[in-house]
Amino acid sequence: MTHVNRIILDRARSNVELIPELARHLIDSGGKRLRPMLTLATAKLCGYQGDGHVRLAASVEFMHTATLLHDDVVDESDVRRGKTAARLLWGNEASVLVGDFLLGQAFKMMVDVGSLGALRILSDAAAVIAEGEVMQLITAKNTDTTEDDYLAVIDAKTAALFAAAAEVGAVIAGRPKSEAAGLRSYGRNLGIAFQLVDDALDYSGEQATLGKSVGDDFREGKLTLPVVLCYRRGNEAEREFWRRTLQDGKIEDGDLDEAMTYMREHNALSDTMERARHYGAIARDAMAIFPDSDAKSALLEAIEFCVDRPY
Amino acid sequence: MTHVNRIILDRARSNVELIPELARHLIDSGGKRLRPMLTLATAKLCGYQGDGHVRLAASVEFMHTATLLHDDVVDESDVRRGKTAARLLWGNEASVLVGDFLLGQAFKMMVDVGSLGALRILSDAAAVIAEGEVMQLITAKNTDTTEDDYLAVIDAKTAALFAAAAEVGAVIAGRPKSEAAGLRSYGRNLGIAFQLVDDALDYSGEQATLGKSVGDDFREGKLTLPVVLCYRRGNEAEREFWRRTLQDGKIEDGDLDEAMTYMREHNALSDTMERARHYGAIARDAMAIFPDSDAKSALLEAIEFCVDRPY
Repeated sequence: MTHVNRIILDRARSNVELIPELARHLIDSGGKRLRPMLTLATAKLCGYQGDGHVRLAASVEFMHTATLLHDDVVDESDVRRGKTAARLLWGNEASVLVGDFLLGQAFKMMVDVGSLGALRILSDAAAVIAEGEVMQLITAKNTDTTEDDYLAVIDAKTAALFAAAAEVGAVIAGRPKSEAAGLRSYGRNLGIAFQLVDDALDYSGEQATLGKSVGDDFREGKLTLPVVLCYRRGNEAEREFWRRTLQDGKIEDGDLDEAMTYMREHNALSDTMERARHYGAIARDAMAIFPDSDAKSALLEAIEFCVDRPY
Repeated sequence: MTHVNRIILDRARSNVELIPELARHLIDSGGKRLRPMLTLATAKLCGYQGDGHVRLAASVEFMHTATLLHDDVVDESDVRRGKTAARLLWGNEASVLVGDFLLGQAFKMMVDVGSLGALRILSDAAAVIAEGEVMQLITAKNTDTTEDDYLAVIDAKTAALFAAAAEVGAVIAGRPKSEAAGLRSYGRNLGIAFQLVDDALDYSGEQATLGKSVGDDFREGKLTLPVVLCYRRGNEAEREFWRRTLQDGKIEDGDLDEAMTYMREHNALSDTMERARHYGAIARDAMAIFPDSDAKSALLEAIEFCVDRPY
């Protein structure tokens, strides 16, 4: 991982001063580095001996970082990873373009590694992620969104990169299709579980104790699974509340508290966690074909981490 | 439902004697008529006043019957609904062609109803079902199939018709998109739950007490979720067992008992039921936007029926 971080900092360099400045603002804020970890761990699991996995892992993180930069512009977010969002410091245009730069660097690194199989998987993922973002743009703020629609969005927007990050480990190690498919399924279901837990945590009080603010998704009018469940389970007055706050964006003082009350009444957070555990269980079974090893333990722990994390 | 049954018998008529004979062999064996029931109940739920829903319901049952006839040919099944499979009595060719005849009758009835929206939904489903069958043909007997792959198959092969059957009720009643989407999601998840429970029941002892034989899927070499879970969770000797019996089709005396032992050891049946309950819960939430009514109660009971049924 130290090696990956070094490459990430190195590849964020450019003679155009603004680029490393903006990129490092986001990269230095840390983040969990969960996605590149998947590539490293799956490559290790598959007995890969070369060093290409490190550059693929860095590519995966760059793809993720580019998505964050673009997302913040689309969502008009003010904060990212506890810091002022890059778009507020350097502007929307710079955020979009530096995102593109990072995506370009990601592809360059993948090409350097020279695995056509890995390139295909990661470039497919890039297209699916973009598709997912557009899907979200269309469904966003639409309170009629069904759970199926929402799952399709996060499958594309979040899970596709987790799936690709895990699958390329088997592909560069030249392992059989069955193992690549197993890791892909692991990554995909882990990604869905991860996103659902993220959705629940955004409304959970525990976040506050960790210096993160509760209700960011609510303030940004993001329709996530807890809202989908609350909206459907609520009465007409409650549905009117969700339409006013999220669909029409008219949020008043006390609305977040009211939202949290509905979340509790309808068990929306605990049921979102319950749904996440279902995908966690599928991820675990996907891994079951691999013999025990340190790498396998790490990948299984990642499921526990995602489902049980308090932040 | 009496009305639907009358139409079904009426439309199975033909001057070509073989057609009604073969069709009625299967239709008279009953079956749960779950799919047409969905169309009737959702149309009622949506306040539909006409009589088109009865012909749409009959179309849905014909589409299902056609699939069964074709499936039995592809799977070389000997028994269907407790009776000798039509293909053994009249031959594979006749089964395929009478299936096509029923599909044709289904489309004629849909066209008679005159709802372009319903036609689009049901003809889309017909295409997706066929695609699902081909998908299954390719993945069938491949023990490396992941849970995701398997879910994709049953989503197309089984859930697509449930989804369409439920959605058309809202469409012919001219209800808003949000309600059609809710019913579609209800039907889809109900269909997935239904198929998973079917998969578990095939290996469960309770079936035997109801005059059905245990292990049909096993004997036919069908890869279902309990097998996917057992294969992944088992050791190398067990995987060899599944490859020999299902992939290579070399089944010996005592193999079914051995399979059942593995199922118990790995909680494959209870976990398949657990997965089914997850989809049942999604179906229930999809229905939550509708106000209470008899039709809604019936649709919710269908979920309980599917998840708790012993046959």
